[in-house]
Parts: sequence; C-alpha cells; structure tokens
Amino acid sequence: MKTTKIAILGFGTVGSGVYTVLQQNSELIRHRQLLDLSVKRVLVRDLLHGRNLALAPMETFTTDYADILADGEISIVVECIGGVNPAKDYILRALQAGKTVVTANKEVLSKHWPDLERAAKETGAGLYFEASVGGGIPIIRALNDSMQANNISRVMGIINGTTNYILTKMTNEGRAYEEVLKEAQALGYAEADPSADVDGWDCVYKLSILASIAFHARVNIENIYREGISKVSAEDIAAAKELGYTIKLLAIGKKQDEKLLEVRVHPTMLPNSHPLSSVSGPFNAIFLTGNAVDDIMLYGRGAGMLPTASAVVSDVIVAAKTAKGAHPYMTFNNEFDAPQWLKNQKDWTSSYFLRMEVDDELGVLSKIAGVFAEYGVSVHSLMQKNENKANGSAELIFITDTARELSVQNALCALRALPCVREIKSVMRVEE
Amino acid sequence: MKTTKIAILGFGTVGSGVYTVLQQNSELIRHRQLLDLSVKRVLVRDLLHGRNLALAPMETFTTDYADILADGEISIVVECIGGVNPAKDYILRALQAGKTVVTANKEVLSKHWPDLERAAKETGAGLYFEASVGGGIPIIRALNDSMQANNISRVMGIINGTTNYILTKMTNEGRAYEEVLKEAQALGYAEADPSADVDGWDCVYKLSILASIAFHARVNIENIYREGISKVSAEDIAAAKELGYTIKLLAIGKKQDEKLLEVRVHPTMLPNSHPLSSVSGPFNAIFLTGNAVDDIMLYGRGAGMLPTASAVVSDVIVAAKTAKGAHPYMTFNNEFDAPQWLKNQKDWTSSYFLRMEVDDELGVLSKIAGVFAEYGVSVHSLMQKNENKANGSAELIFITDTARELSVQNALCALRALPCVREIKSVMRVEE
Repeated sequence: MKTTKIAILGFGTVGSGVYTVLQQNSELIRHRQLLDLSVKRVLVRDLLHGRNLALAPMETFTTDYADILADGEISIVVECIGGVNPAKDYILRALQAGKTVVTANKEVLSKHWPDLERAAKETGAGLYFEASVGGGIPIIRALNDSMQANNISRVMGIINGTTNYILTKMTNEGRAYEEVLKEAQALGYAEADPSADVDGWDCVYKLSILASIAFHARVNIENIYREGISKVSAEDIAAAKELGYTIKLLAIGKKQDEKLLEVRVHPTMLPNSHPLSSVSGPFNAIFLTGNAVDDIMLYGRGAGMLPTASAVVSDVIVAAKTAKGAHPYMTFNNEFDAPQWLKNQKDWTSSYFLRMEVDDELGVLSKIAGVFAEYGVSVHSLMQKNENKANGSAELIFITDTARELSVQNALCALRALPCVREIKSVMRVEE
Repeated sequence: MKTTKIAILGFGTVGSGVYTVLQQNSELIRHRQLLDLSVKRVLVRDLLHGRNLALAPMETFTTDYADILADGEISIVVECIGGVNPAKDYILRALQAGKTVVTANKEVLSKHWPDLERAAKETGAGLYFEASVGGGIPIIRALNDSMQANNISRVMGIINGTTNYILTKMTNEGRAYEEVLKEAQALGYAEADPSADVDGWDCVYKLSILASIAFHARVNIENIYREGISKVSAEDIAAAKELGYTIKLLAIGKKQDEKLLEVRVHPTMLPNSHPLSSVSGPFNAIFLTGNAVDDIMLYGRGAGMLPTASAVVSDVIVAAKTAKGAHPYMTFNNEFDAPQWLKNQKDWTSSYFLRMEVDDELGVLSKIAGVFAEYGVSVHSLMQKNENKANGSAELIFITDTARELSVQNALCALRALPCVREIKSVMRVEE
C-alpha cells in the first residue's frame, strides 16, 4: 500500500467535491488501486467564513501557501481555485518545488500551458488536467491513451453547460434568450456576469486544450474564432426546428491537412440525426473523427461538484502511481507539429443558414438567387414563411450547400445592397 | 526511439486492420509516442489462399506458430483469430514465453480470463483487451484509468452491432425480424449462422468482461441471463413507437449493494429521451452510472476493421511503453470483491411492457386489473388497440410500474388462466 499526501488549493465547489470523493471512496481506492490517498492540507482564503469548512478537521486548513510548499510529505497539489491569479503562481511554485499538480483550471492552462509544462519538466513533476475539459468526461485521457493510433481530423464539442442549458430551454419552450438567461441566473446556472459562458470564452479555453491535444499542435486562444449565443433568436430556433435542425454552441476544430487547422466557437445548426443534437441541458459531449476509429462520442456531466471531482481524483490516482520523472508531457515545441497557419475565417468552408426579410413581390427570389449564383454559392434548400401582409414583407430562409465563407460574406454584402432585401436577420453555420 | 517487434496471429478483418493502421499511422506513432512499432511476423493458416496476403511482404507470413514463439525479438503478440480454439492455446503459450498479448477476443477472455491472467502474472507479461468490448470505443481503459474514483452502480450497453442494425431497420421500416435478418445476411452484416449475435451470446461474452471490470468482481458467463432478439415482433416495435419507446438489445449490469449483482442481456424498451435510444445501426454505446461521475456514455463503431484496430493498436502502444512486470492486472481472486450471489431473475425489479390479446367485452379490463392488483403489480399506463371485430378480440398493452419479476411472472400465469385472455403476446423489460 502506497501512501500519498495531497494538498487541495481552494475549497469551493470543485475543491470540496474532491475532498468528498476522496473520503467517500477511500476504501474502494485503497482496495482496488492499492493507494492510500489522504488530504493533509487545504488552502483557503478565510479560516472563519469559508464555505464547506465543516467538511474537514480544522487543522487541515491553512491560509498560508508556504505551509504546503514547505511540507515535504505532500507530493500532489490539487489546484481548485480557478482563474489565472493566483492560480498560475501557485501552480508554478508547486511544480518548482517538485510537487505534481492536478488542476481543473482551463483558463490558466490555455493561457500559460508552455510555462507550466516547462516548470514541470524541469523538476520531473507531473501536470494533469483531465477535469479542465468536459467535467467528468474522460476526454483528455481518451485522446492521450486510447486514440493515439489515430490521425484525428475533427473535434466537435458541446463543452459549456450554461449555454447548452439556455439553448435547450429556448428550444424546448420557444422562449427568448434574455428571458431564459435571467431565469438561469436566478437558479444559479448562470453567473451574475454571464460573459465567460454566453460570449464563448469558456469554450475557447477548453477548445484550445482539446484541439492542442487532438491535433498535437499548440492552438493558442488568439487563434480561435469566437461568437457567443446572445444573438440566437427564438425565430432562428423555430426555423431550425422546422427544418429538422437543433442549434448548439459548438467548439469545432478541423484539420484540413497536416499544416492547416481551423478552430472556432459559434452557434451551429446540427441536423437532429446527429448524436450531438440530443445532448441537452447541463450535459456535455465531445465528438471526434479519427482515421482509424472513425466517429466516436463521449458524453457526460460537464460540470458539477462530484463529476468534476471524478476526473480530478482519476488524475490524482494516475499521478500517485507514476514515478517522478515518468510523468507524460505534451511536446508542443516541435517543428513537425507547428501548424504554419490557422485557417482564416474567410477560407473556411461550411454550409450556411441564412434568414432574411424581403419585399413580398414577384421576382424577388430570382434576384436573390442571381446574387448567390454570381458568388458561387449554391442553395441546398429554401423556405418561405411569415408573410406579413401589413408591411408587404416576407421571410426567406436558405440553407446553402458547402461554400467558402468569403463567398457567402460577399454574397451577403451584395444582397444587403438589393432594394428588395430589407434585412439579413441571421447567418449561422451548419455542420452535417 | 524504442523499437518494438510485433507478431499478428490471424490476418482476417481485424488482423489486417491492425497491420494497416500500424503502416498508415507509423510516422505519427513514431513522432508522438517515440515508438517504432514493426510487424515482424504474421501467422496464417494458408500461405497460398489467405485473404489480404498482398498487404505485407511474403517473408512476413508463417504457418508455424513456433517461429513466433521462438523469436526473442518479438515482444508483443496480437491475437486476431477469434474463438476459443486455437486462440486460447496460442495466447497461453505466448504469455508463458513472456510475450505480452493484445487481443480482441471476447469469447476466450470471458471463458478463460483467470487462466490467461495467471499465465501473464507468472512471467510478468501484459494481457490487454481494449478491443474485446465496443470495438473502437475506449471503454476498458475509461473504466480502469478514468473511472477509478467511482463506485459504479450500473452499466448498460448496446454492444452488438448486428442486432442493433436489425432492430434499427425493423424500427425505421416497420419490417419483420425474419425479413430483415435475411437482408442483413445477404449484405454480410449478419453471419450465415446468426446465433452468436441474435441469440445474445456475443453480448454475454462482452457483458462478462464489462461487468467484471465495472464492478471489480469476476462475473462468469454462466451467471448472465440471456434472451435474444428473435421474438421481437414488428407489432412490439410499433407499440413501443406509439408509446415513445425504442427497443434495443441491452447488456445490463446493476449493483444492488456490494454483494448483489444482476447481469442480463435481453431486448429492452427505452424511452426515446434516453441517450442510448438514438444509437442506431452499426454503432455501439455504453452508458455508465458512477457515484461521483453520475451518468456517462461512450459511443462509437462497435466493430469493423479499422475501428477495432484503433483499439488494438492503442493497447500495443500502451503495452510497448510499459516495462515488463509493470503491466496492470485485475484482482478477481479477492474475497472482498466476490459477490456472494448474482441476483436471481425472480428478484429483479423492473418496469414491464405486456402485450396481450383479449376478448373485446365489457368487464375484461376490470378482471385483468384485478389480477395485477392481487400480485402487487401496479399499472403505469394502458393502451387498447387493434380491435378485431371479426374474431371479437382486442389488443391490450400495459406498462407496469417497477415491480418484482416474480410478481409479474405470477400475475402472467394467473392471466393466462383467465378465459377472457386469449394470448400473452409479449413481455419485455423497460429501463428508464
């Protein structure tokens, strides 16, 4: 039986979840893994007013990180603070002290991965982060230890529970974005400042990690195109439904060839037959395509105290069983792997959903179709609806065949210049 | 760069797939894993008439297993023959020679696991079998390396592609079992003798492996209840559809408490909202519930040359990176883990779907409801259909609340004795 002493930094939802799982399943872990994992110290900001302080013996807690760094018995530090400051500094100091770090912190990892990995390599400490993407879903380990024989060409993920909850509610109940967001905030499913979720930042951090591992190339957050869900309207969702599609905030990474990647986060229309389209509410899922395994999907709870702790503790177990110096690292600083450029938005190819208000007159469709033809955009399907007799307008909905984004953007400019086109109401990418 | 020499036993679909993936992705594996994996020998039965012989240089092939056993350079033997004989003997001899074995063979593993594991332990060789369940889906490694912090209470899987293909066709096209089976045989999706698939044997082998790992207790195939799909009728599927359910052949393992397991393979009705219900055609999926991670599902191709090879080669990579003596083993021979008994079918609790032909007369429903009440079976929903004026009969469909199987069986006996009940047409378990 190997004994491993652990420190937890931060005792909010994730930190207290890790403590709970380690307590609750300690006998099972001892028996099956031959590991005795014990939490020696927990770092908190305030010894008097912290949440969850009743969970652990009082002497476990400290407000001084030096207590943990100086403790030679502690070999694994579990960082559950979140955000960049002070988490980055704490992680670096633990690694420099030769302690292995397990973290669920997607922001610090996506922004400072090379620094953290360098520090880990210097002392032979481990750096583990299964919980940083997809909560309890074992996507990092699946990519590293099970998909290694594959050249992965595509990753698509629903990796933010808050936005998926909002879009699912909007879809099921036909309600407007603002209204559902307010309700989600009242219920605690969305933050008071929801920007990190609804504007897609959380997805960008996670996609940076996911795409870097899937494509074995460092994908910086600056290279990821980002569009949030705030512009998704009840009308878009209703039109999608009618056409047999569901709107999801997807994080997408595609490899066009060994040197050409496109990485993007935006609302996306998926046909209802796609396995991702039925991933609803707080669930997350990651859909991968590899040249041997073909399509594969991992589905589970993307957040929450215990699911996240499940992933953190699995890292702790792997780390505890791995000898110092034998921890795995990524090898990003490698010429072979560096994509020469990340594909520019203009060069993406996709199918597009276009909704527009036009004059309800004979000949309008022919003019619009003429513009599409001029820019080489072929129309896959067309639906006319919401004829408005009062103002003489109608709504047209197009789904295009696969086209270059630049061609579609140019066609939209030309359409806006047509007198018969009153407004381009929405433009959304479609994945098949 | 570490060089590892491999032998492949059998060069049918799986064996040639493994060879293909090792060739096709060799550069990627060399670069990312720092491993040079090369296939030195391939064992075939016939050097003249074998399939796929053009794939590899002629000197690679041998018909004499002794050539491989005696070759000290070969450290990993990939068994792709299938079935028990001669695969079991070949695996044992490789392990006894200290060679690590990677296999996709669910039958030999489920029937002879303790013998194989004992032989592996004696020489410190590895025994890997990711491809034995779920084809390309990394379920074995997910359970062993990612779900270790969980006490798993339930496993449910669609783990046979042939039966899922047949049931999906029956569901989508309203056709009868015999007709769809014949078509599947003509297309090569089902064997000439389809018993291993349609009678549930393949699922039993896989569930034995899956449940043993999930519950960390040796589940023998003799302890698994088995019912195939041949009795599923187009009428059952139509009724399920009308009620919002889908019929799937599920492999189910449930832990009632630490000493009480139930393990069963049978056609099952799932509500359409369940993620498993939309797993269609040749796809497989495994749905797990753990006390930390909650619900999680892994989805992908359950068979096929390259998806299976993806799993086999991932094992080869892990095995090649693991030092002799450091390979992981299961610990089944452990008192703590041995379930005292596997729950008897009579003690199962489930919801049930019952379809029966009755006299179309006043008072019949009341008599039937009286029998259910007598045996403590509560009715969740009822549907009457197919009134047949000519013979004075009607069809009744019940879905019960959760009840003991024994109570339901007793109630069915009593119902059969009622003169107004002409025939019990089907009894199917329902999972929520």
